[in-house]
Amino acid sequence: MSSLGFGLIGTGFMGKAHAIALRSVGTVFGERDAPRLRYLVDANLDNAKRSAEAWGFASAGDDWAALCAHPEVDVVNICTPNHLHREMAMAAILAGKHVHCEKPLALTASDAVALRDAASRAEVRTSMGFNYMCNPLITVARELIRNGELGEIFNFRGWYQEDYMADPATPFSWRCLRSQGGAGALADLGTHLINMAEYLLGPISALFGQLSTVHTHRKDPVSGNSREVENEDIAQILCKFSSGCPGTMEFSRIATGTKCDLGFEIFGSKGSIFFAQERMNELRLYESQGPARLRGFRTILAGPQHPPYAAFCPAPGHGLGINDLKVIEVWNLINSIASGEPVFSDIRNGCRVQQLSAAVELSNRTRDWINVEQRALDQNAELV
Amino acid sequence: MSSLGFGLIGTGFMGKAHAIALRSVGTVFGERDAPRLRYLVDANLDNAKRSAEAWGFASAGDDWAALCAHPEVDVVNICTPNHLHREMAMAAILAGKHVHCEKPLALTASDAVALRDAASRAEVRTSMGFNYMCNPLITVARELIRNGELGEIFNFRGWYQEDYMADPATPFSWRCLRSQGGAGALADLGTHLINMAEYLLGPISALFGQLSTVHTHRKDPVSGNSREVENEDIAQILCKFSSGCPGTMEFSRIATGTKCDLGFEIFGSKGSIFFAQERMNELRLYESQGPARLRGFRTILAGPQHPPYAAFCPAPGHGLGINDLKVIEVWNLINSIASGEPVFSDIRNGCRVQQLSAAVELSNRTRDWINVEQRALDQNAELV
Amino acid sequence: MSSLGFGLIGTGFMGKAHAIALRSVGTVFGERDAPRLRYLVDANLDNAKRSAEAWGFASAGDDWAALCAHPEVDVVNICTPNHLHREMAMAAILAGKHVHCEKPLALTASDAVALRDAASRAEVRTSMGFNYMCNPLITVARELIRNGELGEIFNFRGWYQEDYMADPATPFSWRCLRSQGGAGALADLGTHLINMAEYLLGPISALFGQLSTVHTHRKDPVSGNSREVENEDIAQILCKFSSGCPGTMEFSRIATGTKCDLGFEIFGSKGSIFFAQERMNELRLYESQGPARLRGFRTILAGPQHPPYAAFCPAPGHGLGINDLKVIEVWNLINSIASGEPVFSDIRNGCRVQQLSAAVELSNRTRDWINVEQRALDQNAELV
Amino acid sequence: MSSLGFGLIGTGFMGKAHAIALRSVGTVFGERDAPRLRYLVDANLDNAKRSAEAWGFASAGDDWAALCAHPEVDVVNICTPNHLHREMAMAAILAGKHVHCEKPLALTASDAVALRDAASRAEVRTSMGFNYMCNPLITVARELIRNGELGEIFNFRGWYQEDYMADPATPFSWRCLRSQGGAGALADLGTHLINMAEYLLGPISALFGQLSTVHTHRKDPVSGNSREVENEDIAQILCKFSSGCPGTMEFSRIATGTKCDLGFEIFGSKGSIFFAQERMNELRLYESQGPARLRGFRTILAGPQHPPYAAFCPAPGHGLGINDLKVIEVWNLINSIASGEPVFSDIRNGCRVQQLSAAVELSNRTRDWINVEQRALDQNAELV
Repeated sequence: MSSLGFGLIGTGFMGKAHAIALRSVGTVFGERDAPRLRYLVDANLDNAKRSAEAWGFASAGDDWAALCAHPEVDVVNICTPNHLHREMAMAAILAGKHVHCEKPLALTASDAVALRDAASRAEVRTSMGFNYMCNPLITVARELIRNGELGEIFNFRGWYQEDYMADPATPFSWRCLRSQGGAGALADLGTHLINMAEYLLGPISALFGQLSTVHTHRKDPVSGNSREVENEDIAQILCKFSSGCPGTMEFSRIATGTKCDLGFEIFGSKGSIFFAQERMNELRLYESQGPARLRGFRTILAGPQHPPYAAFCPAPGHGLGINDLKVIEVWNLINSIASGEPVFSDIRNGCRVQQLSAAVELSNRTRDWINVEQRALDQNAELV
Repeated sequence: MSSLGFGLIGTGFMGKAHAIALRSVGTVFGERDAPRLRYLVDANLDNAKRSAEAWGFASAGDDWAALCAHPEVDVVNICTPNHLHREMAMAAILAGKHVHCEKPLALTASDAVALRDAASRAEVRTSMGFNYMCNPLITVARELIRNGELGEIFNFRGWYQEDYMADPATPFSWRCLRSQGGAGALADLGTHLINMAEYLLGPISALFGQLSTVHTHRKDPVSGNSREVENEDIAQILCKFSSGCPGTMEFSRIATGTKCDLGFEIFGSKGSIFFAQERMNELRLYESQGPARLRGFRTILAGPQHPPYAAFCPAPGHGLGINDLKVIEVWNLINSIASGEPVFSDIRNGCRVQQLSAAVELSNRTRDWINVEQRALDQNAELV
Repeated sequence: MSSLGFGLIGTGFMGKAHAIALRSVGTVFGERDAPRLRYLVDANLDNAKRSAEAWGFASAGDDWAALCAHPEVDVVNICTPNHLHREMAMAAILAGKHVHCEKPLALTASDAVALRDAASRAEVRTSMGFNYMCNPLITVARELIRNGELGEIFNFRGWYQEDYMADPATPFSWRCLRSQGGAGALADLGTHLINMAEYLLGPISALFGQLSTVHTHRKDPVSGNSREVENEDIAQILCKFSSGCPGTMEFSRIATGTKCDLGFEIFGSKGSIFFAQERMNELRLYESQGPARLRGFRTILAGPQHPPYAAFCPAPGHGLGINDLKVIEVWNLINSIASGEPVFSDIRNGCRVQQLSAAVELSNRTRDWINVEQRALDQNAELV
Repeated sequence: MSSLGFGLIGTGFMGKAHAIALRSVGTVFGERDAPRLRYLVDANLDNAKRSAEAWGFASAGDDWAALCAHPEVDVVNICTPNHLHREMAMAAILAGKHVHCEKPLALTASDAVALRDAASRAEVRTSMGFNYMCNPLITVARELIRNGELGEIFNFRGWYQEDYMADPATPFSWRCLRSQGGAGALADLGTHLINMAEYLLGPISALFGQLSTVHTHRKDPVSGNSREVENEDIAQILCKFSSGCPGTMEFSRIATGTKCDLGFEIFGSKGSIFFAQERMNELRLYESQGPARLRGFRTILAGPQHPPYAAFCPAPGHGLGINDLKVIEVWNLINSIASGEPVFSDIRNGCRVQQLSAAVELSNRTRDWINVEQRALDQNAELV
């Protein structure tokens, strides 16, 4: 069997993360999955060439369309700035390639819907870069819920907070532009958690949102003038899941002191769980059973009993890192291509997250609850 | 100088907590403050007599009106079931007594307003039983905010979760009745945090609420029939403070595994703080200064440098307990009577919390934001 | 029945803690136990009078011998500087009084043995001020071990660290004198943990110790001269319990940043526990059972299911404080007097701790292991 | 420039970890360092071939001597069972190859000394697999100490606990044999911490040790008979550093519930630090400065301000994993070869750790303190 050929677009933060993952996945999971690193493209040809050599790609270039068309490229990895995702993903899909796209899928819900439908017609396998979901402990969390080990689910509290824009002196950048940074914290951070919430608890049926821009102006580093920030620092959401379970979600890019504080608490009739990404190797679990005097939240440390941890290390408690999650993400896509079964966070999920994100903005504008059942979303003229 | 005479109504959980505090406050803080335990009343005369002997009260009875009228009673402590607070507080105020009332002040906003106005006319000193606020570390938190040590405040996240109603098998009780248990989790738990939020950040100007009853029916322990629960298990709130700062608050009485999980995160331009009552001797602080490689959230352990901790123990890190907070609450009232200066959580705050709570319910009904500036509250026919 | 009359010697830190406890114990535990605060003595008569009034003692004086002889005093509480404990305890015992003595019982092992033997002959009930042991969660820990719930015990790691002498600039004081401060960190801190270790695991049979004085000289605050410190900052101990279980213990008064870091880890064949006093309302438990993927250390929060927590508060997770432990200590002695059954930390334990402490010093001198079985201790001329 | 050729011996747990690291190091750190994966050897030829294909090695075989002699192999990575390290390392050194050897260097101190001296004569660069040391936060810890930011160091407390042999039912294996498993927990776990202690605080000058075998017999899985375990479950050490600082170290392979609990506390006159591997992305720091009311242990989260974290991820708090430490270890060796400067944990450190380990065993036998200054070690007939 010949392994899959990968073409990677972009050599920045995420491009490098994909490259590390593509280099490691075969070693970590065994020979069947070793990908061929076929083609690397960057807008800057020198960058592309230098990185291709360091990262072990067979060829390099600066024309992403050529990459999408290349016969030995089976999978296209899209790691470019957000506003470029749409057209690259569409080109790859139309060329019949499988697609591994960093989030967001697109900057508008309607663009996302077009991609979703194109991918469906092309029958290609896709994956979105929601890497936090690939944590073995998130799989445990999902199983606990799906197996009924937590009983009926009462409540969901989720958040994702960082502080990369907390300092008022941080200058104006593309992140502050609606056309490039999308809906700010909601786009950067919120999409990760919204997707994870639906992965864990099933679809959200209605939501209500409040968006806030605390730093309304920032200094343009070129002109030195104050410029108006076009998107929001904080998003706060009330929601209901289709199951009837209520929830809250909160996202901030100005949460001073937090670095990667994505987390959730989920309360059920038989137990509860707590997760926070800054301690990504820990899942806290409470079970409403056993002697009352000995109950409490326990801290489960990731180990080989939590697949696929053992592929990385046979010893428990030694710790996975953020880059390992990307290796799992790549591996999931490889398996999806082999089996024909979609991964959870494929382009449909990427599209839905985009629609939910648009619904939050709509709610903020109208100050009203929004029905976000899939049928309603697809019929809401403001969200497609 | 003759010390103050106290009359205590109620010998249950909170009555006992007040008695412990009244017994200890003189010893903890020194001779000036030693109260006279003058009169103890309980609906059950035997209970009253037995407890009076054990707790050191000079006399006992079953007539709370007589207690309120007694010439040697200077302060009336109201520790009865919630629905009795209103008339007892009113009687005490009209008799010119100072009042120390457990929350809630009343079951409706209009009753609370009547008490507030009566207390104002009578010029008595009052205190509400918001004991968590009396924590020396909450004082530190407030100072950090008021002094500007955290800079401009960006965001508030607060919560109060317990699990005393989490088990669906917990039978129907007075807590499930609107007439006695008020607005459920919002009343039991939320009022503590709403009051604390305003103590820390100043007034809330607008809010939006979602209330949910997960366990809609419970079994009546007498009849064995299923009865409809009249109030809510979960309250979720979006808000804006007058300062412009956005916030969220969430309350649940069915948060399996949590026992006294009242807490908050407050993010500012110069730093952030985190507090959670289950670790009431710890305050977490992040400061955006010093070498970047050494920054992080620190855990401040309560000690004698945090007044009035030293009155309890001269050694740091030894730990205060929940009953110590009630001692501080009593001491604050004694000082307020001596100085004529109101405490933060007096009857005005108790009334405002009642109005804010009503506003949350109104928002939940109307699915709309509610203006809760004090003037607006007092003019909103649905909230007075 | 007439309640017990208490006579308290000393109005400092521990005197006040005893007074708070004596004032509260009846209220907390119910009428049967309400003590009479009969007599308060301090070397300074004004202090004694002022405190007696504030704390509710019937009479005051400056003659501790008179207190010991007073016919209405049933129990003598000794809260004076360490070097005075011996003669006061002996006088009280010889007067047939029950004794509640702060640790250390005496400054030498031979003095402690004399007191132990005198108390035994006098058939009085005694209690030593090892308050940390009175924590309801320590009772849980002991039960887990005694009931076999942790299986065979493999290993003990204990420590007690504070930083009250960490700063080299802290001046010379009585704490630095062998005649008053005893063996430094070993005496101040170590005795608490040594006693707790034997409470939990049974007797230690052999030990080996290393003592270190890091700050060998400190500045005399009066003369301004450098004086040699006569006792040690750090004690480090290897030991074996009679059960065969090995252990380590470590004590430091210069552990910068720690405030009340008394704690232990105990590992068994079926489970393990972890405790640390700075989070005194938490006990961590690991059980080697249940599904492997869900195992982990859980945090048990103190609650009413852990007697006698419920006497203080009926709600779980609300938190006891350090002063509450002293209330339990007083209550234990009251019950001991009523029942004739000794408490765990009575004068025999206080004596044994003194002997073990002497054995550590002997080991440090001889650089050899010391047999500390009780028979060997009593026959070791250097330890009696 | 031609990159280095690597030959890897062993395809088990550590062999795979080296392979992952060799595959990633060029991508993570940039083109200059991309190694050539030249040769993979395993005792089982099929394993070798299959793994070579999956991991990207140019050739495979079952003859490690041929690998050591291969002209295109510049560095030999030794990842075989412990008792094979010695002869492989010696062959590689004598062939003039650089050596990257998993610990232990050898099973006896004298073998280790022979290797140390051979490497010195051959002037090859070496690295031992003490991967925990490669954590960017350990570099921060060392700098804090070396720069004097913690002031004078008072005390060291270190430990390394796991529970892989805690269950008495775990069968007899090579780990229980002195000839293969060495000194048990001391060899498996202790060597990591001993090396780290000297990395942080400089050389240990004297030590005293207690070794304990709790599970003295285990069932042979083949014969079904009970066999005597030849090495120890627990090692407990008192020590002094050359600086005069006292320390303790404790190692256990039967610490039920712990998974990778390597950690330390270091107390100094200006501050203290705490580290525990199970939360490897956190370093706790206390500084004795700033306002007293705001002091506390802070948690520093690993981020790009802690080199070389940024090579893995530009965003803070996202988390490194155990395999990333091996990448850093490989990178350190590559840089060492380029610069000619030794890494800290080279073969000299590996030898010293072996000698210190032997000294602990000697102390346990003689029940005496052992002088472990390097000169004394090299002259102690029992340790060379």
